[in-house]
Amino acid sequence: MKAAIVTIGDEILIGQIVDTNSAWMAQNLTLAGFEVEEMQSIGDNAQQIKDTISDVFQRVDVVLMTGGLGPTKDDITKKTLCEYFDTTLVFDDAVLDNIRNVISNFTSLNELTRNQAYVPRNCTVIQNKVGTAPITWFDHKDKVLVSMPGVPHEMRYVMENEILPRLKNKYDIEAYLKRVFIVKGYTESALAMYIADFEDNLPQGFGLAYLPSLGLMKLRLFVRGEHRLPEMEAEVEKLQALLGDAIIAEEDISPEKILGVRLFEKGLTLGTAESCTGGNIAHMITSVPGSSKYFKGSVVSYANEEKVNVLHVSQENIDKYTAVSEIVATQMAKGIQQLLNVDCAIATTGIAGPDGGTEENPVGTVWICTVYKNKSITKRYQFGKYRESNIMRASNNGMLQLLEMIDNNTY
Amino acid sequence: MKAAIVTIGDEILIGQIVDTNSAWMAQNLTLAGFEVEEMQSIGDNAQQIKDTISDVFQRVDVVLMTGGLGPTKDDITKKTLCEYFDTTLVFDDAVLDNIRNVISNFTSLNELTRNQAYVPRNCTVIQNKVGTAPITWFDHKDKVLVSMPGVPHEMRYVMENEILPRLKNKYDIEAYLKRVFIVKGYTESALAMYIADFEDNLPQGFGLAYLPSLGLMKLRLFVRGEHRLPEMEAEVEKLQALLGDAIIAEEDISPEKILGVRLFEKGLTLGTAESCTGGNIAHMITSVPGSSKYFKGSVVSYANEEKVNVLHVSQENIDKYTAVSEIVATQMAKGIQQLLNVDCAIATTGIAGPDGGTEENPVGTVWICTVYKNKSITKRYQFGKYRESNIMRASNNGMLQLLEMIDNNTY
Repeated sequence: MKAAIVTIGDEILIGQIVDTNSAWMAQNLTLAGFEVEEMQSIGDNAQQIKDTISDVFQRVDVVLMTGGLGPTKDDITKKTLCEYFDTTLVFDDAVLDNIRNVISNFTSLNELTRNQAYVPRNCTVIQNKVGTAPITWFDHKDKVLVSMPGVPHEMRYVMENEILPRLKNKYDIEAYLKRVFIVKGYTESALAMYIADFEDNLPQGFGLAYLPSLGLMKLRLFVRGEHRLPEMEAEVEKLQALLGDAIIAEEDISPEKILGVRLFEKGLTLGTAESCTGGNIAHMITSVPGSSKYFKGSVVSYANEEKVNVLHVSQENIDKYTAVSEIVATQMAKGIQQLLNVDCAIATTGIAGPDGGTEENPVGTVWICTVYKNKSITKRYQFGKYRESNIMRASNNGMLQLLEMIDNNTY
Repeated sequence: MKAAIVTIGDEILIGQIVDTNSAWMAQNLTLAGFEVEEMQSIGDNAQQIKDTISDVFQRVDVVLMTGGLGPTKDDITKKTLCEYFDTTLVFDDAVLDNIRNVISNFTSLNELTRNQAYVPRNCTVIQNKVGTAPITWFDHKDKVLVSMPGVPHEMRYVMENEILPRLKNKYDIEAYLKRVFIVKGYTESALAMYIADFEDNLPQGFGLAYLPSLGLMKLRLFVRGEHRLPEMEAEVEKLQALLGDAIIAEEDISPEKILGVRLFEKGLTLGTAESCTGGNIAHMITSVPGSSKYFKGSVVSYANEEKVNVLHVSQENIDKYTAVSEIVATQMAKGIQQLLNVDCAIATTGIAGPDGGTEENPVGTVWICTVYKNKSITKRYQFGKYRESNIMRASNNGMLQLLEMIDNNTY
């Protein structure tokens, strides 16, 4: 079964927002066994919306649309769907009741919000329990079009609780087998050359994709059809034998989740002392639900005074070696370990850029110290010139460096 | 001039990555005066790539493609473009020289990387100074197709330094006038009703779009054509008069940048004490280049011991009122102000979810205290049930709450 995702909104086409909905929907449709053929983003333009629907209906079975359902004049999706499916808007009391329930905690009902209870006559209306725009489901010659709000958390709730269950119910789908490996220590081309024989000898229908991430590689092995599971298992074993310890996880999981699982399993606690990463490691780690079980806290010592006063880094070392130095990184890590009384620590100090580079320490220089119980490792990394990616690379590498210490632990 | 953005990659269609390139490209094309008609994401599939090119060439003048240019077998864009434009690959020594320059700092040249020096015969080759995949520019019956790498920082470098200047040079474009207003204190529908008369009386061709963000509204007023600048100015004045202080910025700028500018202008320093936001405020603030001029640091006190030991929150208060309470938020903010000797502080404590809620403090409850010199304000917020958006809402509201104190300062 083929699906297309269509996101509607002028704000997407002028680049004012990044469309994160499509990726989330694609991931969940794929897991459900649908083949996402294409994603399109188009404007709040009636003719373009109708042309796009006609067009994608020629290629796919299911069209999932988001956006253009707000209460304001620039939102025209509902009206346009009426034109496309040759129907009219009718007032729906059940939708109004739902809207009243949703907004009761926030604000009173105004006229624009009340108008959201108008829905196309010939469709299945699905109540939006987390927002005011109703979801409309159109059955159209064995095909389906669903229009849902573009607000990300509303879309997710509606997809999980309403759309995906109904789609699975309607279609009998062949599942997609997929295995993901997070691999450290290789560039894309080095990894490809190393496993070239494996790739050349994959069974018919199997695919292998390389996805470089900041400081990591993801490998995705895939094939359609549940009946190919034994072959998949055999290929996975070959890959495991080839890559060994370079595989740090066998699921599509972020470094903060891998590290979190390891810390939790081993009953270890963590603290971070962050200069150039500015709290991003703490932010990433605490984005994982349940992280309070192992993460105790962080000191973001952006200013040198804080390095000295809170983390007890020696002022003499800062004066002698600068704040971007091996000794300062090490003292930061040991300082936070002591301050929070934690088993493990990650400390970063470097030049994220775009300014502040010197000949000795150009932009992208980062010292990372990781501490595991009474051992520490401090390494110098040289990243690039982009602030955002330097912060991300330093964060990922800090977590991986600690993960490696824990995994190699023989003390 | 109309443009389309086509991103290629199976990893996009299965939702393994979020396509952030399209938004960046759209924003910069729009600023340059192009009208981005559509964005499409398609797979690493030769037929689909060729069909999509034929299709979008019927509607637009410029097609910008990213992705599918890596050194591995799943990357087929270059070969497919040869088929589409009926040409062949030839080895290009200048590209090889460039590749050698790019990789010299990292690694030695392997065969797969060397193969990236094969380029289509009938196109303009543009060197990629920050990566190994060359950019190819095809002139095709007055229209243009450019294929560039999908690695975000490579795409950005290439767009800024090569593609956008060449496109502006080739086409004579009517610029797009746009004004953005960041507005606080309104929901989307409340704002729309409040400015309904203004919106109804906009001159012909003007558009107004509403973009709700977590805790904020963005309004975008736009019209095509430089000659409409006087009308734009007149409309902007009307909007300013209508909204007054609710407008907190007149550009498309994030709360962390608005706050950063204000702190820098007034010579104020900031520290944060973060529990439920887990370092995200520090991360957002330090994502702005130059933030070390006003941001001194943060204590992410995820564990109660750290609240007590580092920030000097009273253990009795935690026992009596729990960590999610007005008094604890206030003591955290005052604690970080004193610890870092800063003018301003933001403190957060709450239940980000999905677990940990109680009847009194359900998931989404957040106390935020902001301190400006010797004044403090502590407020309770009730957000929703999604961890990610609770963290973002608490972060944005913390920054806005402080901004409001600074702007209303009469002390």
